[in-house]
Amino acid sequence: MALLEKINDPKDLKKLSYSELYILAQEIREKIINTVAKTGGHLAPSLGVVELTLALHYYYNSPEDKIIWDVGHQSYAHKIITGRRDEFHTLRQYGGISGFPKRSESPHDIVDTGHTSTSISVALGMARARDFRGKSHAVVAVIGDGALTGGMAFEALNHAGHLGIDLTVILNDNEMSISPNVGALSKYLSRLRVDPTLHKVKDDLEFLLSKIPAIGSRVVRTIERLKDSLKYFVIPGILFEELGFTYLGPIDGHKIQDICETLRDAEQVKGPKLIHVVTTKGKGYPPAEKHPDTYHGTGPFEIKTGKLIKKDTPPTYTRVFSDTLIRLAKEDSRIVGITAAMPSGTGLDRFAEVFPDRFFDVGIAEQHAVTFSAGLALGGMKPVVAIYSTFLQRAYDQIFHDLCLQNLPVVLAIDRGGIVGADGETHQGLFDFSYLRSMPNMIIMAPANENELQHMLYTALKQSQPTAVRYPRGAGIGVLLDSDLKEIPIGKGRLLKEGEDLTILAIGNMVTPAFQAAERLKARGINAAVIDARFVKPLDEKLIIDWAKKAGHLIIVEEHVKSGGFGSAVLELLAEAELNVKVKQIAIPDTFVRHGDPDLLRKEYGLTMENIVETAIAMLDNALV
Amino acid sequence: MALLEKINDPKDLKKLSYSELYILAQEIREKIINTVAKTGGHLAPSLGVVELTLALHYYYNSPEDKIIWDVGHQSYAHKIITGRRDEFHTLRQYGGISGFPKRSESPHDIVDTGHTSTSISVALGMARARDFRGKSHAVVAVIGDGALTGGMAFEALNHAGHLGIDLTVILNDNEMSISPNVGALSKYLSRLRVDPTLHKVKDDLEFLLSKIPAIGSRVVRTIERLKDSLKYFVIPGILFEELGFTYLGPIDGHKIQDICETLRDAEQVKGPKLIHVVTTKGKGYPPAEKHPDTYHGTGPFEIKTGKLIKKDTPPTYTRVFSDTLIRLAKEDSRIVGITAAMPSGTGLDRFAEVFPDRFFDVGIAEQHAVTFSAGLALGGMKPVVAIYSTFLQRAYDQIFHDLCLQNLPVVLAIDRGGIVGADGETHQGLFDFSYLRSMPNMIIMAPANENELQHMLYTALKQSQPTAVRYPRGAGIGVLLDSDLKEIPIGKGRLLKEGEDLTILAIGNMVTPAFQAAERLKARGINAAVIDARFVKPLDEKLIIDWAKKAGHLIIVEEHVKSGGFGSAVLELLAEAELNVKVKQIAIPDTFVRHGDPDLLRKEYGLTMENIVETAIAMLDNALV
Repeated sequence: MALLEKINDPKDLKKLSYSELYILAQEIREKIINTVAKTGGHLAPSLGVVELTLALHYYYNSPEDKIIWDVGHQSYAHKIITGRRDEFHTLRQYGGISGFPKRSESPHDIVDTGHTSTSISVALGMARARDFRGKSHAVVAVIGDGALTGGMAFEALNHAGHLGIDLTVILNDNEMSISPNVGALSKYLSRLRVDPTLHKVKDDLEFLLSKIPAIGSRVVRTIERLKDSLKYFVIPGILFEELGFTYLGPIDGHKIQDICETLRDAEQVKGPKLIHVVTTKGKGYPPAEKHPDTYHGTGPFEIKTGKLIKKDTPPTYTRVFSDTLIRLAKEDSRIVGITAAMPSGTGLDRFAEVFPDRFFDVGIAEQHAVTFSAGLALGGMKPVVAIYSTFLQRAYDQIFHDLCLQNLPVVLAIDRGGIVGADGETHQGLFDFSYLRSMPNMIIMAPANENELQHMLYTALKQSQPTAVRYPRGAGIGVLLDSDLKEIPIGKGRLLKEGEDLTILAIGNMVTPAFQAAERLKARGINAAVIDARFVKPLDEKLIIDWAKKAGHLIIVEEHVKSGGFGSAVLELLAEAELNVKVKQIAIPDTFVRHGDPDLLRKEYGLTMENIVETAIAMLDNALV
Repeated sequence: MALLEKINDPKDLKKLSYSELYILAQEIREKIINTVAKTGGHLAPSLGVVELTLALHYYYNSPEDKIIWDVGHQSYAHKIITGRRDEFHTLRQYGGISGFPKRSESPHDIVDTGHTSTSISVALGMARARDFRGKSHAVVAVIGDGALTGGMAFEALNHAGHLGIDLTVILNDNEMSISPNVGALSKYLSRLRVDPTLHKVKDDLEFLLSKIPAIGSRVVRTIERLKDSLKYFVIPGILFEELGFTYLGPIDGHKIQDICETLRDAEQVKGPKLIHVVTTKGKGYPPAEKHPDTYHGTGPFEIKTGKLIKKDTPPTYTRVFSDTLIRLAKEDSRIVGITAAMPSGTGLDRFAEVFPDRFFDVGIAEQHAVTFSAGLALGGMKPVVAIYSTFLQRAYDQIFHDLCLQNLPVVLAIDRGGIVGADGETHQGLFDFSYLRSMPNMIIMAPANENELQHMLYTALKQSQPTAVRYPRGAGIGVLLDSDLKEIPIGKGRLLKEGEDLTILAIGNMVTPAFQAAERLKARGINAAVIDARFVKPLDEKLIIDWAKKAGHLIIVEEHVKSGGFGSAVLELLAEAELNVKVKQIAIPDTFVRHGDPDLLRKEYGLTMENIVETAIAMLDNALV
């Protein structure tokens, strides 16, 4: 690590020659592989842009020049050379550095990211602000070809082309989102990629030729001759050109000098520029190059073999979801599965293997995913849209306008509901109960365990209105899976334990610690009732009111923000029922939850059996005072 | 109305000749103008597509063939010829027919709409469902050039091009959103529009020529000769072609026969097709043709002159917002105004007149509008994004990820918060408190009157974190406007009236009826305290707790859904404070609020002085029992 030891700031790069930069790239790559093998993380995206990162920091002067990483999961090399080399081993760990850009970590991190397709909008705003303030620094957005399928990236391109101000978009084209890219745009980029000159011209000419009406041979002869001559001039990237961008590329994203020279060329052009850089996802680590989706975001692995180090755990919720969906889809040909560029994360990849024509990956396009599903439902299908809780936020209005308002039977399979861990603030799924429950016609369930999940999915598919099933990331709790699926009555919770001293009302993954807490309390002479609410909406009004009344003390537990969440719905119910009950809410406070091990985070926020016990004791003690 | 009298169903059109269709078009136009002059409504959009509507229903067999109107505000002719001619006079009235497609009104209304850019997604889903089910009907999305700037339309184009299934997109190009269109795409469409053949070729050739390196005269000569020959073949619409669509057009959208013939041509082409139809917004009514933005959505007007029939009312909230913003912007050059295609609706048109270079209309692109503002704030500007409450829903994740997570000083000026009236379900602004208050770092204010609005905007611009000011549609209550602007302490409400029998806690436009109710109650011997909460977040905890405690009876009033709203925040506070207080919430129940006069709707849902009085009396009577 001879060279890397000397790089404490991007300025230190400027002293290096191009050949030294390649040596440095190798050192950075090793550091990334060695670290992520232990911590887990976004390996393949970050390996793919090591040279690009060095080129950008070699050419530009960060942080005066603003380099904005779309999504940010590819920023490891950036982090290592911007002062975080020695902390890099704490990546994604509780209290350590984040896997995403964070303004609080470094002035070189221009904006906190985690969700895709935002970088061009941010960059355009910053570029316009720069012009207002009479400054002249560069503003550069680095965006993947996957992220470009998100509609807001197009909104930003459209506006940037309109404003016509100086701005550089680096299109990091690795032919992948997390999984291989889909969509017409992707196909278009492939055409550009194969051969930017001859092929494009040839295609265009063939297209032109096919359009010639039969008007004699003069034109045809001209075209024929043109065919030979045209190879020197082309219009690659016409799609971007039509939107007002100057297109440069494609260039090899692993050749630092080429990138720097293109950046220099680009600087001569006024207005918005798009530089098409082709990179290999996972570059330099053969297992990741070969399976970039597996190593997109990975857990710890053995470096030599690339073998993932897996703990022996019960099946994940994701796995149970996909098993159940496949099972149900075998019996009902109307069931279709939709993902927004997350086939493996959501488990729909396995569904796609069994039902390739009933599976839709729409690209990074959550808005379209939901409204496309609305169309499928209107056409008589039974769509199941599987999206992570945090990304479903991007389709708020589509859920509202195209599912709830129409009251259509679309199932939202909301994976990663609750604390997700190492990805941090941008990925925690802690807002869904709030944003979904205010929408009329919506049914919201959350299973207490993986067995409940299968019944809930079965139940959801029987409804004639929008139905969300929200379940956590990771392994189930290891309960047996019933072989027969059963329909759960809508709006009915279950009483797990009777008790007259207080009632603990829990939802989702908090049901188990609630039950354990009641057991623990029993040992201390306190008899607590426990309810698995099952439904955030509609609430089991009778069950909740009866048991809230019984003891007069109610603890509500949810892995969700307190504001507007499940507990808040219960408070509305109690107010409506004019019940005077002492209520304690255990939930996430009004803050963004950082990254770290989920259990450590749960402990920090009191989402534990121990805290339920303590809360119960304190509550009853107070009542005695 | 001789012909129109016979049209009870689109099937009746098939008996007519083309020339009869033009007569019918005239009759429909008259009916629309005569009706909207009385009811108000979306005049210009609907006048622009009369011939297009007739052509579509003449060619296709609705409802077997599915015609999906994007936004739906252009559907008046469609409504008139699909069985709603005789009810058309009830347009947008309480209990009457809606101004938008509604599945409950007619099988010819395929999907309920109101928000833009969704139609291609819905159509694609329906087309795919059709193929699954072995049917062969047509699926047609009619989308404006404005709506096409919304990112999700692009997401859908990208996916449609990928799937390659039969689908027809009618691009209704009138060069307008509500105001003239912006963006590079718009410029691109203009180029296509002017002259689809010669001009396009000429541009392309000039572009090609400009790219020729100095490699001698052979190529140049070829090009020169080509210039003459090429005029017969062109590549219009290459942008759409690159996305996998077959482009046909542009054609004159007021020539029924031309449209029908193009539809016939299109049917020969497999896969997704885009037919570019050029229409004139407001066609056939000179005032609307001349000022299509004024007559986009209009109140009642005098037909002969086009003069709007305006009641003499206090200045609107929108007007006070724009006056105040202009005033503040004169003193602070960092203030910029951003709208998503709504300059006149939000009042930013007046800001744009004074500060043309500090005004940004980003197109129908709420997501980009918010994140672009984040970029401006990062660059040191003070952005004010003015968006209607209902449309801000489309930027939920951008508010979350790009404003709140970064904790950036961007002001959200949320117009049309609360009941908006005649536009109905899709436009009511009844969810914003819920979806905003669960986001950390967000400040949310709502003014009790137009004077408060100016102080709140002033206050919002002094904050260093995201701040929302939510105000209602329409006229203020007529209070005097203070000449000096003052900063309101964050998180402080105001006690308007003391009282020991109960406390009425109101927010926004419900403060006035709350105060009036207290006056009325006084006359009946009940002494109610009244609090103007001012803030939904942060709450004035001390004030609320003190006064809730004092009487032990609390009524909370808000023009917002109950689920997760302001009252729900208060309930969380009371639970936290372990206060046993009787609480009644007056708010919108869990339902979509239909169209109609706002005061009638408020009455329906009890958002009135009278209902506050009754609730208070009932509450105290119960307490006595």
